[in-house]
Amino acid sequence: MQDSLELVAANKSFDGWHKRYRHRSSTLNCDMTFAVYLPPQADQGNALPVVYWLSGLTCTDENFMQKAGAQRIAAELGLVIVAPDTSPRGEDVPDDPDGAYDFGSGAGFYLNATQQPWARNYQMYDYVVSELPQLIEASFPVSKLRSICGHSMGGHGALVCALKNPGRYKSVSALAPMTNPSQVPWGQKALGRYLGDNPADWKAWDTCELIAGASERLPLLVDQGEGDEFLAQLRPEALEAAAQAAGHPLTLRRQPGYDHSYYFIASFIEDHLRHHANALIN
Amino acid sequence: MQDSLELVAANKSFDGWHKRYRHRSSTLNCDMTFAVYLPPQADQGNALPVVYWLSGLTCTDENFMQKAGAQRIAAELGLVIVAPDTSPRGEDVPDDPDGAYDFGSGAGFYLNATQQPWARNYQMYDYVVSELPQLIEASFPVSKLRSICGHSMGGHGALVCALKNPGRYKSVSALAPMTNPSQVPWGQKALGRYLGDNPADWKAWDTCELIAGASERLPLLVDQGEGDEFLAQLRPEALEAAAQAAGHPLTLRRQPGYDHSYYFIASFIEDHLRHHANALIN
Repeated sequence: MQDSLELVAANKSFDGWHKRYRHRSSTLNCDMTFAVYLPPQADQGNALPVVYWLSGLTCTDENFMQKAGAQRIAAELGLVIVAPDTSPRGEDVPDDPDGAYDFGSGAGFYLNATQQPWARNYQMYDYVVSELPQLIEASFPVSKLRSICGHSMGGHGALVCALKNPGRYKSVSALAPMTNPSQVPWGQKALGRYLGDNPADWKAWDTCELIAGASERLPLLVDQGEGDEFLAQLRPEALEAAAQAAGHPLTLRRQPGYDHSYYFIASFIEDHLRHHANALIN
Repeated sequence: MQDSLELVAANKSFDGWHKRYRHRSSTLNCDMTFAVYLPPQADQGNALPVVYWLSGLTCTDENFMQKAGAQRIAAELGLVIVAPDTSPRGEDVPDDPDGAYDFGSGAGFYLNATQQPWARNYQMYDYVVSELPQLIEASFPVSKLRSICGHSMGGHGALVCALKNPGRYKSVSALAPMTNPSQVPWGQKALGRYLGDNPADWKAWDTCELIAGASERLPLLVDQGEGDEFLAQLRPEALEAAAQAAGHPLTLRRQPGYDHSYYFIASFIEDHLRHHANALIN
């Protein structure tokens, strides 16, 4: 365990441990809290594979760990789960002046901001792809086998992180992801402010734009509730079209009646974790 | 569906539905919200058995439904789960003047208050044992087969409701229940204010006191985390002694390392629901 990790909380869960840690992020220039689920196999000295979970708008590291019911499955499969926060936070970190839920705190969009005053802290892409895995791999009994998964804004983050980093993840999946942020209000607001007004600069952070040029055809598993109240912001049909045009393998499951909530996530997280375990554990 | 039930929310969950309803309670003299999980079997016209879940201090109907991961198991077993609020609430309902977490709103203790100003509203025992089941049985595709289960203050509630009503429940269980409220600070504060200063009046609401005279020896299943930060308020050793003295069947499982949180509940709720299904479904 690195000295720089401060244990904030620990709860035994399905014979393993849910733990929360605080650390100083050099990428984000602020203190960050993340959660890790260590399955019982972690006590046996094994180097376990890691699934990174990225949450959606307004979330912290806590929502997924409290509501998704993932620990049961991770304990069975021997997966470590790491859940970072969704943005930099703190007194020194600029936030939306109006306290909007969809920009600033809780809404980092897993990109590297180029505009002021955001660029100093809002570098969630580098944090998730580089700094956090380095910290995890130096601090816990884990291997370098990684998968990534997320919901809504975090589904966007998971897909973008995987598409931009061939070979880095063994598998990727998303629940109700924002697939095409450059074309919808949530994304246009965030990308415009973090990256500037030129829509050409947004394409590097848009799954539907990235798929065409992906050098690795890692299969995408996506679940989307048909009763999702935010369907117009998520655009599963655009993802389907982009994957088809690029010949990118996509399993898009439309789930009748399911909404955008954690009740939806909890209903399907087992399938996602088994998908990742199949890629991570042989 | 009775006209008096107002649907507040509905989320598809494990192929069934989590729904929240508001209604006017004649027992509590206020509007109440409860949650019900209807497993997929409810769509098939079956009359399903019901597990009543009673939550702990500070909770509403939402905590258990969001955090326990119970829907997956209820969907498999064909159990309806009903989760009431933990106290009366509303502008006309008196609350602790200091906003204490352990008395008043969120802390009804599942008893019938006799003291003013509490007696008009704080009748959670009658609500849970009588009014709510009548409403559920008139409004949903359920049978009259009932079990009851709860956590902490709600574990106290579940044990007391079962012990005071022979034949009413097919099974009972509790996670980290307050077993002996008349002997600990949480209980002495609440019982003293709801019931008056005479400790003799508290015995009718104390599991360890009720066990001796129970006319039905319904087996008790209790899980208790050994890392529970509230052990001194819960007194599992008193429950064990009372059950032994009365010859009452008790399975008390001490779980090393587990605390009082929903991470503990989620880890063991499957065992409890299977325990109830064994009694309810043959």
